[in-house]
Amino acid sequence: RHLLPLFLGLFQASLLLFFALFVTYDEPSAQAEDTSLVANQVYSTFPFFQDIQVMLVVGLGLLLTFLPRYGFSSLTHNFFLLNFSMQWALVLQGLLHHFHHGQIHLDLHKLLISEFAAVTVLISVGAILGRASPCQLLLMATCEIPIYLASEWVIVTRLGVLDVGGTITIHLFSCYFGLGVSKALFRATQPPLHPKETPTPSSDLMSLVGTLILWVFWPSFVAVLCQPGDAQHRAILNTLLAMSASAITTVVASSLLERDGKLSPGHLQNGSLAGGVAIGVVADMAVPPVAALALGSLSAVVCVLGFAFLTPLLARKLTLHDQCGIHNLHGLPGILGAAASVVAVLVASKDTSGSQPAQLSPAGGNASEALEGQRGGGQALCQAAGLAVAVGASLLAGLLTGAALRLPCLARPPERLCFDDSLYFKIRDQAESPGPDSSSEEGALALKE
Amino acid sequence: RHLLPLFLGLFQASLLLFFALFVTYDEPSAQAEDTSLVANQVYSTFPFFQDIQVMLVVGLGLLLTFLPRYGFSSLTHNFFLLNFSMQWALVLQGLLHHFHHGQIHLDLHKLLISEFAAVTVLISVGAILGRASPCQLLLMATCEIPIYLASEWVIVTRLGVLDVGGTITIHLFSCYFGLGVSKALFRATQPPLHPKETPTPSSDLMSLVGTLILWVFWPSFVAVLCQPGDAQHRAILNTLLAMSASAITTVVASSLLERDGKLSPGHLQNGSLAGGVAIGVVADMAVPPVAALALGSLSAVVCVLGFAFLTPLLARKLTLHDQCGIHNLHGLPGILGAAASVVAVLVASKDTSGSQPAQLSPAGGNASEALEGQRGGGQALCQAAGLAVAVGASLLAGLLTGAALRLPCLARPPERLCFDDSLYFKIRDQAESPGPDSSSEEGALALKE
Amino acid sequence: RHLLPLFLGLFQASLLLFFALFVTYDEPSAQAEDTSLVANQVYSTFPFFQDIQVMLVVGLGLLLTFLPRYGFSSLTHNFFLLNFSMQWALVLQGLLHHFHHGQIHLDLHKLLISEFAAVTVLISVGAILGRASPCQLLLMATCEIPIYLASEWVIVTRLGVLDVGGTITIHLFSCYFGLGVSKALFRATQPPLHPKETPTPSSDLMSLVGTLILWVFWPSFVAVLCQPGDAQHRAILNTLLAMSASAITTVVASSLLERDGKLSPGHLQNGSLAGGVAIGVVADMAVPPVAALALGSLSAVVCVLGFAFLTPLLARKLTLHDQCGIHNLHGLPGILGAAASVVAVLVASKDTSGSQPAQLSPAGGNASEALEGQRGGGQALCQAAGLAVAVGASLLAGLLTGAALRLPCLARPPERLCFDDSLYFKIRDQAESPGPDSSSEEGALALKE
Repeated sequence: RHLLPLFLGLFQASLLLFFALFVTYDEPSAQAEDTSLVANQVYSTFPFFQDIQVMLVVGLGLLLTFLPRYGFSSLTHNFFLLNFSMQWALVLQGLLHHFHHGQIHLDLHKLLISEFAAVTVLISVGAILGRASPCQLLLMATCEIPIYLASEWVIVTRLGVLDVGGTITIHLFSCYFGLGVSKALFRATQPPLHPKETPTPSSDLMSLVGTLILWVFWPSFVAVLCQPGDAQHRAILNTLLAMSASAITTVVASSLLERDGKLSPGHLQNGSLAGGVAIGVVADMAVPPVAALALGSLSAVVCVLGFAFLTPLLARKLTLHDQCGIHNLHGLPGILGAAASVVAVLVASKDTSGSQPAQLSPAGGNASEALEGQRGGGQALCQAAGLAVAVGASLLAGLLTGAALRLPCLARPPERLCFDDSLYFKIRDQAESPGPDSSSEEGALALKE
Repeated sequence: RHLLPLFLGLFQASLLLFFALFVTYDEPSAQAEDTSLVANQVYSTFPFFQDIQVMLVVGLGLLLTFLPRYGFSSLTHNFFLLNFSMQWALVLQGLLHHFHHGQIHLDLHKLLISEFAAVTVLISVGAILGRASPCQLLLMATCEIPIYLASEWVIVTRLGVLDVGGTITIHLFSCYFGLGVSKALFRATQPPLHPKETPTPSSDLMSLVGTLILWVFWPSFVAVLCQPGDAQHRAILNTLLAMSASAITTVVASSLLERDGKLSPGHLQNGSLAGGVAIGVVADMAVPPVAALALGSLSAVVCVLGFAFLTPLLARKLTLHDQCGIHNLHGLPGILGAAASVVAVLVASKDTSGSQPAQLSPAGGNASEALEGQRGGGQALCQAAGLAVAVGASLLAGLLTGAALRLPCLARPPERLCFDDSLYFKIRDQAESPGPDSSSEEGALALKE
Repeated sequence: RHLLPLFLGLFQASLLLFFALFVTYDEPSAQAEDTSLVANQVYSTFPFFQDIQVMLVVGLGLLLTFLPRYGFSSLTHNFFLLNFSMQWALVLQGLLHHFHHGQIHLDLHKLLISEFAAVTVLISVGAILGRASPCQLLLMATCEIPIYLASEWVIVTRLGVLDVGGTITIHLFSCYFGLGVSKALFRATQPPLHPKETPTPSSDLMSLVGTLILWVFWPSFVAVLCQPGDAQHRAILNTLLAMSASAITTVVASSLLERDGKLSPGHLQNGSLAGGVAIGVVADMAVPPVAALALGSLSAVVCVLGFAFLTPLLARKLTLHDQCGIHNLHGLPGILGAAASVVAVLVASKDTSGSQPAQLSPAGGNASEALEGQRGGGQALCQAAGLAVAVGASLLAGLLTGAALRLPCLARPPERLCFDDSLYFKIRDQAESPGPDSSSEEGALALKE
């Protein structure tokens, strides 16, 4: 019971010590033009940063409230895991990248990078939401952040994979890490359907509001790390087009799949976002607008098909438990996006080696530099290798982490108390003491007395 | 049943074809200073664009959830109509304005213009919300977008009407279009009050949250297309003042109208926004701050009076059905705003022809250019003509569209199933399988039986 | 009953008169470079302004909806008090500061300052939420705004207190003002626990969403008035660190305090924000990052301890009623922040008088100018004096205002009808006609069939 506060408290104390010893702010700029430069950086990055905070804290939090009696837990666990992981990533990145200078200079950009690392934890949690204790989630975050940083270093720095929106490094990695954890944690026992697991109309509504918030701010997530100018402009437009195509295609796919043409709330909540996952890796490349639309549509289709066929299949054949369907939202569209990036790189290199050398310039920014360094074919191989590393390493690391979560001291909640806020919060149980929504209930009780 | 996915799927396929053939991104800027120019454009437009997305997707969506059992449908229909209309407007604008260049260059500004076109559909839907099928809404959107583009071209380009916030071109147009559709769809049969139509406390609360989100971001909607600098600054301030006056005046008016001084949730949800509708057309003109306050107060008063007297009257005399009261929120304040613009233009021209020629410059930007082109009296006539065109054309087009919606293949939901999510969504019916809020209640009821 | 609309209507009429006579917009800038200057100001201030509007209208409004049957009232009263107080502050500031020029030039910055004044009212209301009538709240706002402006003038202009984030001038002032009002209003009669006072799971969830919205946008509130450049960048980073530490520490503290390790929703809703309150006064000073983290952690601890021990103690010993626990969220962390600012100023001055004169420059902007003007020790005294003035003056003024609220014409709602929306709104009483969540309606229909 007291493991959680002890661990967290110890972590905060170490964090304070670490910051006291090693972390300062950037040296202030003495000259007037530097000041205006810093101001411009603040104005160009801070709005994007705030958008991403809204996505993660409010949007993702609400999306997870589809479990009707577990909304408070979903929101709170998402919130404290974000903060814990962000701080932990800040410490590790400080140690890894900046320690050779003795002092670590903190700025908004470093916080943003740490926030991106924290996103992986928030996605992975989706696989085991509701059936894991906060201590288990915390241990998972503790393991996942260093593994993510290592994998991101291999994929981006060593392999030179282009992935401005984190499709491969964040979405694919965290999805297969989460599935690995889930597999190792639940092993061969597919947990039975829990009565508190089924969404209610009002929890589905809140969850949809979360989806809409994520949908609106997704372009900021993809474009924040782009080169300012054309590349960023293109990344925003590509993301907007892909998300818009996803929204429409989800309605089509969900409606065609069900016999009576009714839409499934789960499909809408996830499919509308699939395009954003897939577009990340090609958002700033020189792809034509039609490619963004097609990618958005395709990823919505695979997401909906995944919910309808693949998730039940994996549950039956592999006894793989995926509570929120992260494989459908982050896994399948991520693979699609990675494949699209291979094609995009190949097409761009063919254009260059052909008669239209000027065509390459649209790639702009990071992309064009990388392409100048290597041949397009080599870059395409890199993208494919990045995909393989992200999936393979995360699955393996996830399985190991999941095994660690079975440690006896990290008691998993008993099945009866899963998906229930009252296990972790001093919250009135709705069955015992009825809220304002149920005065008729009181009447009924009074009648009985 | 399968009409909706077929139509939408076909539309997405055509969209892909259209984009593949004709649409590219802007040529990238080769020079460094162009890059910084593009970056500046992104930083100056994108935050406004995001604000408007939040308004339409989250704010307007939540505002429509006041129907307690129809919240999921309101939110989803609003979301997919926005995306469909935006894409459809993108295609039509591409064809209309840019086709003579062979290639269409997509940028954030063109997306924004298409988003504005989509707003008209979202407003018009309010007249028939809950009683029309998704197919009918889709056909309505398909008809409304080209009619809007034509009417906007006549009003702004041909007549030279000044309307930076879309009071005439968007709010008035969409209101009377929606009313026309409603009249033609329901004809002389005023639908009886449906038991599921009455808001509950929790649905009223969600709807009020939607109002507040709209209220907060409204200045971005009005100011996004203004000339940067003074005109935009003034548009923001005018909108803030008008919205603030509306908020207070709505409380006064609603409280005075009811015998026991209680406030009506519907008045608050709509009246607080009336000032934003009215101020749009004069926001960047050289009006003094007091005019913005007065306009905001007046429009709140007419909005509340409309709900109290005009809507029941129209329902009785004309059997006109207006589910969300769009005539009170968009129609009456829109007329007020258009009238105010006539006065503002006349006053500005009198100042010019009089002894203070310097007074004209405050009008700045578009306004001053237009005023230089014509005499103020002529411009005033233009504003009035724009009002007449917007109301007349939209009413006529709405009646025709509404007649088309009566096509037998677009079955309207039976009265018994109106206002019910379970008709379109695989959502647990609250009556059959009670949510967490009422399981004990069911037990109690079962015990009694 | 008709006091509220009469008072508000009269106020709006006076406001119109005042604006008509005295208020204009800034003279437009004739030259092109001025236009780009104004545009830059708009782009640098307006996003912060919007963030703050979201905080106050949506975030704070939702935070107050923890009272399950009073959500509509909380949201609406918060909204109209914000607008009323902002307008009233605009009038008073116009009269006070700008009247010697004859004309008052309105701009976004003046609106922002008025908005800050309005925040004090919204905080103070928390002490008496649910037990005071709208008329009483309005009279309180009418009294509090001029007192705030006077106290802010004394603290910032006369004493030269450094307080960029409003910790002393806004949070401390409004907290003790609210407590004074509460004490004088309820006198020695501690109101008994009301059955409608206990949050339900769904009202706790909405309230937590409000907290998260406040948490995300808090850096904008602290940094909006900073010098652009390094000082603003540092203020943002400090606030982010403090809020993040608060979030984690709240979980630790709340979990350790309860015997069974469960978290209290109230602690989470308030403790997560405590760091933001405390950091405001030192956010732009040359404090190291570790200080921001430590301050955030400490303030979360005092906030949670306050809820657990101090609030019950004050209620028992002083019969002090504090409905929302504003003393724990704004009072205690505010004192902590003020104390931290004394230390920060002393340390900075010691650095200067020592061997590292260059160390002072990090303080940048306002802070460094003030420190150059006086010795650090003097500045430290000033900070302490500001704290004393804010607490003392506000407590006294609050007591007097609270006494005024006992005027017989401002009837306080009877205890039985406290915390109930149906007293002020034409809202369906949930007990009489149950909403869609309650199947008794269905039962009734079923019985009829």
